[in-house]
Amino acid sequence: MSARSAAELLVAERYRRIAVADRPEAWITLRPEDEVTAEVAAALAAAQDGADLPLAGRLLAVKNNIDVAGIPTTAACPAFAYDPEADATVVRLLIDAGAVVLGTTNLDQFATGLVGSRSPYGAVRHPTDPARISGGSSSGSAVAVAIGAADIALGTDTAGSGRVPAALCGLVGVKPTKGTVSAVGVVPACRSNETVSVMAADLALARLAAEIITVVDEADPLSREMPDPDRADPARWVIGVPDPLDLGDLAPGWAEAFADAVRSLTDAGATVRLVDIQPLLDAAALLYSGAYVAERYAAVGAFVSAHPDEVDPTVRRIILGAADLRAADLFADMERIDRYKVVARRLFGDIDALLLPTTVRHPTLAEIEADPLGVNGSMGRFTNFANLLDLAALAVPAGTVDGLPFGVQLIGPAFSDRRLATIAGELLE
Amino acid sequence: MSARSAAELLVAERYRRIAVADRPEAWITLRPEDEVTAEVAAALAAAQDGADLPLAGRLLAVKNNIDVAGIPTTAACPAFAYDPEADATVVRLLIDAGAVVLGTTNLDQFATGLVGSRSPYGAVRHPTDPARISGGSSSGSAVAVAIGAADIALGTDTAGSGRVPAALCGLVGVKPTKGTVSAVGVVPACRSNETVSVMAADLALARLAAEIITVVDEADPLSREMPDPDRADPARWVIGVPDPLDLGDLAPGWAEAFADAVRSLTDAGATVRLVDIQPLLDAAALLYSGAYVAERYAAVGAFVSAHPDEVDPTVRRIILGAADLRAADLFADMERIDRYKVVARRLFGDIDALLLPTTVRHPTLAEIEADPLGVNGSMGRFTNFANLLDLAALAVPAGTVDGLPFGVQLIGPAFSDRRLATIAGELLE
Repeated sequence: MSARSAAELLVAERYRRIAVADRPEAWITLRPEDEVTAEVAAALAAAQDGADLPLAGRLLAVKNNIDVAGIPTTAACPAFAYDPEADATVVRLLIDAGAVVLGTTNLDQFATGLVGSRSPYGAVRHPTDPARISGGSSSGSAVAVAIGAADIALGTDTAGSGRVPAALCGLVGVKPTKGTVSAVGVVPACRSNETVSVMAADLALARLAAEIITVVDEADPLSREMPDPDRADPARWVIGVPDPLDLGDLAPGWAEAFADAVRSLTDAGATVRLVDIQPLLDAAALLYSGAYVAERYAAVGAFVSAHPDEVDPTVRRIILGAADLRAADLFADMERIDRYKVVARRLFGDIDALLLPTTVRHPTLAEIEADPLGVNGSMGRFTNFANLLDLAALAVPAGTVDGLPFGVQLIGPAFSDRRLATIAGELLE
Repeated sequence: MSARSAAELLVAERYRRIAVADRPEAWITLRPEDEVTAEVAAALAAAQDGADLPLAGRLLAVKNNIDVAGIPTTAACPAFAYDPEADATVVRLLIDAGAVVLGTTNLDQFATGLVGSRSPYGAVRHPTDPARISGGSSSGSAVAVAIGAADIALGTDTAGSGRVPAALCGLVGVKPTKGTVSAVGVVPACRSNETVSVMAADLALARLAAEIITVVDEADPLSREMPDPDRADPARWVIGVPDPLDLGDLAPGWAEAFADAVRSLTDAGATVRLVDIQPLLDAAALLYSGAYVAERYAAVGAFVSAHPDEVDPTVRRIILGAADLRAADLFADMERIDRYKVVARRLFGDIDALLLPTTVRHPTLAEIEADPLGVNGSMGRFTNFANLLDLAALAVPAGTVDGLPFGVQLIGPAFSDRRLATIAGELLE
């Protein structure tokens, strides 16, 4: 079959799935089918001609706070939109590897939220249960993959925005070590505590895409080199798990699902060690209960102040509420985080990775509407601390509960990204 | 001669010099001569018996914001004083190497100042010209060495507090890379942008002491390991120097003295390269003109608010003035600093070290009294940026102007401390 014919079949099937899924709110801009087909055909033809294109013909969904040349970057706020002249570095790297952008996706406005419903482009409904949220803020990206439209999706992750929607939609979500992936061409949400993230239906493809975007970018002041190799794999992995009592309130059936995931670790030959996660949970609370949230004001506060009526009310409340937080309190919080980092260093000295649920429950859209801040806040319990403490994380599916996806995270120290993928592949697949 | 007799002679001579110098304001606590003599005798005896004590019998002056067990730590504020149970890690390491604490020294209160006169224990007069300042904030430590009482002095350096008094008193001042020297037992001034510093009359002893205190301290959250080795020394050092026009206003004769120092580099075989220092000077301005100063409020703001009448008025004005600085502005300043770090990385990619004057002038006490903030502010022009940009620095004497010491700094990237010492030894001694 010619590259052109293959591309036509492949792309037509993806647009059919998009139509069948009936989640138009997942997209902010869906590209015309003929343009996508032509680019897929070109990539497949180049690969057939021997070009090194590990992602040839793979379709890519890009959260709309990440620049794609030719498509407005809105961050889910039409009044904020601008026309990027160039692709974000991460997008360019995937395109150079053969991927083709299918469209840009909806998100909690300015990536503020873990719910996926704070957007004038619509609350992104879950792929299989329209009464429930998809999770956010990278909601549209998760749905784009979950409905089989995109192979790979880019998100961003500060408090869990890449991992939570992956978990709720049954996907793999890679939260790289901060700075190992370029932020050039990405609208900052919390500049010093965020990273681009990757979603895919399976671990191998998610990791391939993550490897491709792991490059030092001289144009990104926070860029860091990934040391290579991490370290030799041990004969037997040691995985930290929390005392079940420390998991707190989880949705019905989730504690049992997590216990099953722990059991699968030991069944696969790992040593499981109980660890005290309370310091991590305490650190997590600092992300939004203290002065760190002022970084969101630093990012877009001037815009929100100037355009209050064009911003989602919940997002506006969060961002403007951070305007007058004090720098002295931020320094005090930073000292606390530095002390928690010492605790985390000790914790990860004893284990190869930590296993946790990715989030605590799967809310309905009605629950979010009734309590937009409370429900959202509880969902970051197991994700909020990772960037603050400079950790790597990998969200992986772990079965279903009541027919909906349940997900767990592997968490490790900075630069343990490859180790986490190896552990997930050996123990959790 | 017995260790006891040697100790008696040595220590008596030091107390004689202290009396002759007539700078009682340099000390906050001077230890009793008999105690010091006994400890020096013990150290000398142990060394004679073969103990590895590279600093045996060396006398140590300790800035009084660094804990010495048995002596109150005041930070030059009597109401703030506490009785430390243990020596600061840096003090303990020097004592373990054979040094003996002679006393604790005066400072700009809470290490806030570059002048050495903001203290209820007295404005610390220059060792040879009592009408002039000694420089600060580590004023008493500099004077203790300059008058020949102490061999080694510990200071702290945020904006130049270790380097400026070294320069004005004709000493070597080591400003280590942040985190390579423990902050345990040190009263924080600007926790994330400061370091303990070392002063001595000559480079070899200053470096020896600096090497001894360069250890990883698990109890210090910001502790970092010094990589070893830095890198191989080149056949020919490349030293960056500023365009003379970029030096700005210097005291009469200082531009010529700096030009002499540059000439001595080329005479010693170095390649001199003109570099643009404006980005460094712009970064320097952020230390006190923006939100970073709130870290001083985070450190002692609650104390100052509760005891306004027991705090130096200029220090109080600076610290309380930082109370309401905004966290969002701090995040914005941090982003600026991250961008200046990229510029600095490029700058230091082309040179082995940068040579700059240490400060801009040598004020009189009367000038400081007339304009306590303005003169002080101008003095940090060449020192303020080092910690913000995560650089190492070494202040060395470079002759005299009008009979008073003139000093220059070698500045290099993080962890270049040993390289700077090598360069200073080869090119500037």
